[in-house]
Amino acid sequence: MNKRKICVVITARPSYSRIKTALTAIKKHPKLQLQLVVAGSALLDRYGNAVDYIENDGFNIDAKVFMVLEGENKTSMAKTTGLGVMELANTFYNLKPDAVVTIADRFETLATSIAAAYQNIPLVHIQGGEVTGNIDEKVRHANTKLADIHLVASEDAKKRVLKMGEDENYVFNTGCPSIDIAYQVNKTPNLNFDPIEKYGGVGHDIHWKDGYMVVMQHPVTTEYNQAKAHVLTTLKVIHDLDMPAFWFWPNVDAGADGTSNGIRLYREIYKPENIHFFKNMIPEDFLRLLINSKCLVGNSSVGIRECAYLGVPVVNIGTRQQGRCRGKNVLDVNYSEAEIKSAILDRLEQQNPMPKDSIYGDGNSGEKIAHILAEVALRFHKTIAY
Amino acid sequence: MNKRKICVVITARPSYSRIKTALTAIKKHPKLQLQLVVAGSALLDRYGNAVDYIENDGFNIDAKVFMVLEGENKTSMAKTTGLGVMELANTFYNLKPDAVVTIADRFETLATSIAAAYQNIPLVHIQGGEVTGNIDEKVRHANTKLADIHLVASEDAKKRVLKMGEDENYVFNTGCPSIDIAYQVNKTPNLNFDPIEKYGGVGHDIHWKDGYMVVMQHPVTTEYNQAKAHVLTTLKVIHDLDMPAFWFWPNVDAGADGTSNGIRLYREIYKPENIHFFKNMIPEDFLRLLINSKCLVGNSSVGIRECAYLGVPVVNIGTRQQGRCRGKNVLDVNYSEAEIKSAILDRLEQQNPMPKDSIYGDGNSGEKIAHILAEVALRFHKTIAY
Amino acid sequence: MNKRKICVVITARPSYSRIKTALTAIKKHPKLQLQLVVAGSALLDRYGNAVDYIENDGFNIDAKVFMVLEGENKTSMAKTTGLGVMELANTFYNLKPDAVVTIADRFETLATSIAAAYQNIPLVHIQGGEVTGNIDEKVRHANTKLADIHLVASEDAKKRVLKMGEDENYVFNTGCPSIDIAYQVNKTPNLNFDPIEKYGGVGHDIHWKDGYMVVMQHPVTTEYNQAKAHVLTTLKVIHDLDMPAFWFWPNVDAGADGTSNGIRLYREIYKPENIHFFKNMIPEDFLRLLINSKCLVGNSSVGIRECAYLGVPVVNIGTRQQGRCRGKNVLDVNYSEAEIKSAILDRLEQQNPMPKDSIYGDGNSGEKIAHILAEVALRFHKTIAY
Amino acid sequence: MNKRKICVVITARPSYSRIKTALTAIKKHPKLQLQLVVAGSALLDRYGNAVDYIENDGFNIDAKVFMVLEGENKTSMAKTTGLGVMELANTFYNLKPDAVVTIADRFETLATSIAAAYQNIPLVHIQGGEVTGNIDEKVRHANTKLADIHLVASEDAKKRVLKMGEDENYVFNTGCPSIDIAYQVNKTPNLNFDPIEKYGGVGHDIHWKDGYMVVMQHPVTTEYNQAKAHVLTTLKVIHDLDMPAFWFWPNVDAGADGTSNGIRLYREIYKPENIHFFKNMIPEDFLRLLINSKCLVGNSSVGIRECAYLGVPVVNIGTRQQGRCRGKNVLDVNYSEAEIKSAILDRLEQQNPMPKDSIYGDGNSGEKIAHILAEVALRFHKTIAY
Repeated sequence: MNKRKICVVITARPSYSRIKTALTAIKKHPKLQLQLVVAGSALLDRYGNAVDYIENDGFNIDAKVFMVLEGENKTSMAKTTGLGVMELANTFYNLKPDAVVTIADRFETLATSIAAAYQNIPLVHIQGGEVTGNIDEKVRHANTKLADIHLVASEDAKKRVLKMGEDENYVFNTGCPSIDIAYQVNKTPNLNFDPIEKYGGVGHDIHWKDGYMVVMQHPVTTEYNQAKAHVLTTLKVIHDLDMPAFWFWPNVDAGADGTSNGIRLYREIYKPENIHFFKNMIPEDFLRLLINSKCLVGNSSVGIRECAYLGVPVVNIGTRQQGRCRGKNVLDVNYSEAEIKSAILDRLEQQNPMPKDSIYGDGNSGEKIAHILAEVALRFHKTIAY
Repeated sequence: MNKRKICVVITARPSYSRIKTALTAIKKHPKLQLQLVVAGSALLDRYGNAVDYIENDGFNIDAKVFMVLEGENKTSMAKTTGLGVMELANTFYNLKPDAVVTIADRFETLATSIAAAYQNIPLVHIQGGEVTGNIDEKVRHANTKLADIHLVASEDAKKRVLKMGEDENYVFNTGCPSIDIAYQVNKTPNLNFDPIEKYGGVGHDIHWKDGYMVVMQHPVTTEYNQAKAHVLTTLKVIHDLDMPAFWFWPNVDAGADGTSNGIRLYREIYKPENIHFFKNMIPEDFLRLLINSKCLVGNSSVGIRECAYLGVPVVNIGTRQQGRCRGKNVLDVNYSEAEIKSAILDRLEQQNPMPKDSIYGDGNSGEKIAHILAEVALRFHKTIAY
Repeated sequence: MNKRKICVVITARPSYSRIKTALTAIKKHPKLQLQLVVAGSALLDRYGNAVDYIENDGFNIDAKVFMVLEGENKTSMAKTTGLGVMELANTFYNLKPDAVVTIADRFETLATSIAAAYQNIPLVHIQGGEVTGNIDEKVRHANTKLADIHLVASEDAKKRVLKMGEDENYVFNTGCPSIDIAYQVNKTPNLNFDPIEKYGGVGHDIHWKDGYMVVMQHPVTTEYNQAKAHVLTTLKVIHDLDMPAFWFWPNVDAGADGTSNGIRLYREIYKPENIHFFKNMIPEDFLRLLINSKCLVGNSSVGIRECAYLGVPVVNIGTRQQGRCRGKNVLDVNYSEAEIKSAILDRLEQQNPMPKDSIYGDGNSGEKIAHILAEVALRFHKTIAY
Repeated sequence: MNKRKICVVITARPSYSRIKTALTAIKKHPKLQLQLVVAGSALLDRYGNAVDYIENDGFNIDAKVFMVLEGENKTSMAKTTGLGVMELANTFYNLKPDAVVTIADRFETLATSIAAAYQNIPLVHIQGGEVTGNIDEKVRHANTKLADIHLVASEDAKKRVLKMGEDENYVFNTGCPSIDIAYQVNKTPNLNFDPIEKYGGVGHDIHWKDGYMVVMQHPVTTEYNQAKAHVLTTLKVIHDLDMPAFWFWPNVDAGADGTSNGIRLYREIYKPENIHFFKNMIPEDFLRLLINSKCLVGNSSVGIRECAYLGVPVVNIGTRQQGRCRGKNVLDVNYSEAEIKSAILDRLEQQNPMPKDSIYGDGNSGEKIAHILAEVALRFHKTIAY
């Protein structure tokens, strides 16, 4: 019997974390053959070199595609996507997959979707149907309309995908594979490594052992010009609180340089003694860092998903996660010094873990995904249901 | 007062016919400034050189963008779209429009949508919400999800756009501007030119004055490999009927060469004496040709839209117009010699015009569109309504 | 021992004929591994589908790259080349060759050269140092300046490459592999097939058995606007002579449509009864057709190279082969009806074969090339010699 | 009379400095119209935002072209060039220049050359014929072979361009426009600004008023993997000397991140108290800084050109300027701590200025260039001279 060739395209570090357990399950599945394409910022040192982690995890990479345009503006986001379509079209043409998997809603995921859909390759979209507040919103639903098979992460998301006219026989709630990792890590939750020793990073050698926060703030594409101001606000609050904090640099995005410049500027001028900066960490270590932290601050989707499952207290800043289902662990605030400060103080008073929540799955999404990919009827032709 | 700069991107000959009266109305509107981008197959001789008609009609072209990849397969469709994103991103960056208009559902229209949406330029989609049976279906609804403002052509289409979660304050039924031309032409319906004398074309000098059919058959992207067989079937029927027919070559599409090769092959072998072939015609002449014909045969959207309004009898072959609202003038058949033949014989017995139908508007869509573009609040940030 | 990976990029039908015996020799060589990339017009039906011949000849293709932009103008030539650079850069990155081979001087060969040179992959240029009269002239010498190793086809060419400052240790006169095929074919020169029966083609079923001409005329890029006029002149002469002729369609080029349109137009109007048209032929059959012809007319490089070796009488029209070393078999004429006619009449009086000439090699170029590629020191760093 | 439209493409900060006085002279010339295209890294903040200086200098920009691919490797250099060809082809198509000017030898300048040459637009190459030791060598001479008109900066360069077979009627020694600025600045040589106050930068607030060095070290593309090691060597020497130094960050290049990472790393670990880092400076200020310095250290071409004219002592490290004509002011050393240190000590003993040298012109190159562009016969068709 010929195995189904499932081609997964990973274009950024966070997408890898979200799909990793599914990759493992696809690789192991007797009816499936994994084809792995690593592209975009996942290949770049500046954005955490996800490709190294992928190779270290034992995955074989079938093609690498350089496609990220430099630039401080949104024009380069569009051009990156255009280039991605061209390159991935050729890649799929040569790999001849039976289905292509596109993940979530980053701007360049639409390149994967077009390259597959236009070549009549069945397109599987992971984590459609969610709601947020910027260009991701448009990208995610456009991916849904190009996709043939939908593997969503929550019941809420499933409802929305069906509402948009997708065929209910092709929409499956699998939960989010990122929860699988949280589930595994949570079996042995102790912080079994020294973050600074293991990952280096820059900034002061903070005394984190008696308690620390974790901060991760990304630029928001619709608030492109405010990225710098927003990150400076958060930096000031964290600095003023004078409590040890591990801060993670943002991913690639049109505003990446705004946020990054803000951080560089602040470091240069204020040299905050309570903050240590990391580029990135392997997901397991990052989750363990969260489990043992006082709270997470910023606008990362980890705060909404993994932290819901783990019960880590979260201060979620601004609009980036707007509209996503969240647990009791999250306190939402605006880009305001006062609000952020008061929310952090509130969260510091919570016990970590707070009560847990299974909105995004309970730890076996990867296997569910592999099973569906092995059994679902593959198709590339659909009409809107109404 | 600064005029709103409305940038319309035309990528193919048929799109121009569908938008022409709106262009005129935008150009005339005191609050609007038209920016016209001509791209893709609209620049190419092989596909009817729409650019010449556009310039002859007195429109000033702000930028021309070459982006069509050669090829007989779907890979080149994807690559054309990717290249379009890159080029149009730069074009919009330099033109700085207040809104961008993308038309309907051809594969490369998604390039216009991405280039605008990713740069936070409000995106207007013309003729969303319809239903057909191939890749256009995916493209059309992906355009909808990237667009901020929807100008649809029928009530049916409006319902579907709303169902997909679009904000009802931004969905307007304007009818289809192509009906505006039909409305104008129908005021003086006589065939006031000799088609062969005016347009040349190839094939026999048929005796059309006592009655003729018009044929227009495009390849269907999901039936890529059958394009040649399908067109050969239709050619055989038309040839056998031995009645004068004007046949129009197809537009660019992944299967274009399949259909075109089919036609070339048939001509070479059988030299059908009752068929004369044209590359294209200005829309007014084409409509007048239809008004004075016995019937239209093929799978063109003109059969569904303009012919509904005009009452021209139509034999619609195959899946290309599947799911689109149609009038009584249309008889649907499969790719079968027997079915096509019997349907043509049936239509030949109808009187042209048959009873008319206003599903797609009543002749003033262009002005409605300009009015809305001048008055609607422009935005580029939305969330799904639910 | 690791074999040297030699990556050859074929972008057009005529390039394949020129390199075929070298491919075979590389494939057989114990120290070499052939990596074959087929790109550009070599993949397209409109230009003779060289890819089919390559696969039929038993070569394994490592990557196919679609990169030809449609268009009637020179802009699309430039864009095709740009796209080629992008795609081939990624292709080489993934194939990791020890050396890349770029062939001759078609515009898109510069894409191969840049993609290799910029990635510090040793670049081998085949057939540099020649002289012609259009954009090829610029492309060829730019290839030379990007290349590290030069395999030229004649002593004349070698002198010119050295003059441009290349290191004499890296310039080798191997002759032209196309002569190898002529050498093989000439062992059994009889016309062992019926051209029309085997290749179809279009036009009249001419009586060729008592003698025929072969015509092959390509557009000249610097005479872009005259392509149509030039081919019409030749068509008229051939038609008037009323002697059976086999005519071959041109390759892809900015002016391809000019020449092709000229041919289509002439056929449509005059239906010349003495001409039969072919798209293309396998090289062996084409050479056998020439060996058995009265003469070759047009501007193909075959007239200069293979026909010199074979002694086939040639009428060479216009500027395309300007500056290339030629044998006694060639009569050069301008784009003039009178000149072409009188030259053809002169050639028809010659005996085929005329005295032979070994300017471009004596039949073992392929093996010489493989031997050099196996033994030469590979480098990617050079300075101009002076 | 129609003015000749001269389209100059600037793709990097240093290219702007080299062409600035020519731009002014073209703009003023009664027979010329300047079309200015700013592209590539000249648009990017990370590489000094040359576009701001250009606009501040009062030049109108006709088109901006984003084309730089991100990446730490040579693949992105190739892809940037390919993208540049595509975009610039369209830009020239829309601007319709009478001639295009490409500058020097950065990798992406070949994009300008191809986009112009392939569209039969006469191509002017500035500063061909020089010799260096890496990929620039290949790019420069490939530009020469694509160009129709050559404006070289020295007699030495002129000889080399002629040797390569260019027509002597189209090769002109104009000197280098960068010398024009040096000539102007040198009229009022005092340091009339406080560098740190005016430009900010990062690092210690060094006491530079009693004497300082200037350092500028770029990555060398053929020594891609050593970029970090090389810059660390120089950093160590400068740090150890404990003399105030102004250090300038490198331009974009495949190795940029290697060099930049080296600098960041060194700063993070050693916090050198005698070094202050700048991103860039306007050329006039930079030259004044050099005139008042003790010496220049690194591998910048400024050391070879402007410093020859100005008599500034220079330590030139490594292979980057290999083969370029230089004055007595330059001491060449390898990437060796001992050699660099001893050379700096030697140069510190020289009086600044040392004896001057006019190899690269005497201060009126800009006007010479404009004059030639106004008067030379424009052509796009050439053959190699031999």
